[in-house]
Amino acid sequence: MLKTTFKPYYAVIFTSKKKKTDPTYVSMAEAMIELAKKQPGFIDIESAEDEIGITVSYWESLDAIAAWKGNSMHQIAQEMGKNDWYKYYKVKVARIEREYSFEA
Amino acid sequence: MLKTTFKPYYAVIFTSKKKKTDPTYVSMAEAMIELAKKQPGFIDIESAEDEIGITVSYWESLDAIAAWKGNSMHQIAQEMGKNDWYKYYKVKVARIEREYSFEA
Repeated sequence: MLKTTFKPYYAVIFTSKKKKTDPTYVSMAEAMIELAKKQPGFIDIESAEDEIGITVSYWESLDAIAAWKGNSMHQIAQEMGKNDWYKYYKVKVARIEREYSFEA
Repeated sequence: MLKTTFKPYYAVIFTSKKKKTDPTYVSMAEAMIELAKKQPGFIDIESAEDEIGITVSYWESLDAIAAWKGNSMHQIAQEMGKNDWYKYYKVKVARIEREYSFEA
């Protein structure tokens, strides 16, 4: 049987609930997405929000994730998130093992 | 150093874009969430939607995920999804390796 090779990569699943809508949050969130895209090992980011927010970012390695977590601008945003924006958030680091897709 | 034990578990990251809002979709989506919750090995499910939809379900094992994918009611919903609802969807199966959270 022909088996396609699949190179595992990593996801950060960030689920959150915000205290209130804050214009500073919106511009900071956009800035962080742009900054994330410039990091080594960044692959993609997807985000949706209604009652809760879910953002999933994809990375080539755990080292790339650790470097992004430690980025100094990102750390400032993380502090603002804790102090001002989030009622709660949950972060899960996961290894993508398999994927498939459908397009109409 | 004290190290807490962490039992790995699995996530299905489902990202999608719908063709249009369809009342049948809404009730089927709710029914599928209720049905998923009753499956062996189900842990949790989180969902958010704006321009795209992101649903992440969490499971105890890959076997539990495979069983849910093969569930006959779920298979009917999957077919309706392909035929009627989704412009595209992407499914990623991932192993959660680490997690942390914050609560204000």
